[in-house]
Amino acid sequence: MDYLRDGAEITRRSFAIIEAECELSGVPADLRPLAKRVVHSGGMPDLVADLAWSEGAGAAGRAALEAGAPILCDVAMVAAGIARRHLSAGNPIEAAVAQPDVARLAGELQTTRTAAGFSALADRLSGAIAVIGNAPTALFHLLELAEDPALRPAYVIGFPVGFVGAAESKEALIANRLGLPFVALRGRRGGSAMAAAALNALMIGEEAA
Amino acid sequence: MDYLRDGAEITRRSFAIIEAECELSGVPADLRPLAKRVVHSGGMPDLVADLAWSEGAGAAGRAALEAGAPILCDVAMVAAGIARRHLSAGNPIEAAVAQPDVARLAGELQTTRTAAGFSALADRLSGAIAVIGNAPTALFHLLELAEDPALRPAYVIGFPVGFVGAAESKEALIANRLGLPFVALRGRRGGSAMAAAALNALMIGEEAA
Repeated sequence: MDYLRDGAEITRRSFAIIEAECELSGVPADLRPLAKRVVHSGGMPDLVADLAWSEGAGAAGRAALEAGAPILCDVAMVAAGIARRHLSAGNPIEAAVAQPDVARLAGELQTTRTAAGFSALADRLSGAIAVIGNAPTALFHLLELAEDPALRPAYVIGFPVGFVGAAESKEALIANRLGLPFVALRGRRGGSAMAAAALNALMIGEEAA
Repeated sequence: MDYLRDGAEITRRSFAIIEAECELSGVPADLRPLAKRVVHSGGMPDLVADLAWSEGAGAAGRAALEAGAPILCDVAMVAAGIARRHLSAGNPIEAAVAQPDVARLAGELQTTRTAAGFSALADRLSGAIAVIGNAPTALFHLLELAEDPALRPAYVIGFPVGFVGAAESKEALIANRLGLPFVALRGRRGGSAMAAAALNALMIGEEAA
């Protein structure tokens, strides 16, 4: 079959198409690699229009990564998408839903296991990078926990997906009055691959992972 | 904060919205749960219009699963998204890109590591379920390998994503003259979460994973 097999060239052409098709002028220069990688992970140039960020979000995300902040994901799929070999500070990675005792805790808190997982990770939340690629309830619960300054992450990547609560949880993140630095994707779209792509972009810009 | 915390109710409402917004009449009855789960995983009702399948694809996928066929994914993110506890036949799961020696093999075959991973898995391809959620080259290479009847999977879930080769590799799958049973998503969209959702739907229909 006749197709392009050279991974580096595939990446180069992919990002050339993304640059040609995406309107990036409204995105701060240091977040454009993130915008492009999110577009790349979803195959959708119009994702750029749904991106939202706090002022200085690019620098804040990189600073947290370089400080070795733990990366607390909602689900294992997000964790699996992180380009680990580029984590130069050896940041630990956890999946909230995979924490021990999360089913009992979810019953106690009357919420989902994914949300309860962030309570299970409470002692690691301060200064952490929280990456939500799946569950709106996890993002809502994270915002509740972050009301306590001792449980406030350094950075939130808010990309939950779906039809019930996803858009609302991201609007709550965008409207947060806690000074939480974030990037988020408005609306129903999102998901583990886009969330991991956003985190990877903070580490490695546009290079192939 | 005021939001819905009951996971079962969130799922129920999500699928009610999906049913209200999706045009499912063109999808065979036994593939509608798959269509809905793919929509659910991406937050996009219009994905239904891009779904493609071979005749009898729902039954073929379930038969392969029930026979214990190995599930060969292109990348670890797809493998991480599989609802393992619902694999009643204990199907083994492998990620092509994570096979030992895949970097050397990619050099030898002059292709990507993900594609080479399916050559590394050649002795398990016959009768397998191949799930491609990321790399167009992996799907192209799988179709090349499948020319040999001894290397022919029982089922292909073709959901690679992106701007270079994704749409083309899925059209090649859809046009295959090997009798390969498949489901695929036309166009640039796709990804690990949708691919895993498609597989999970064959196991568990619309139930929450």
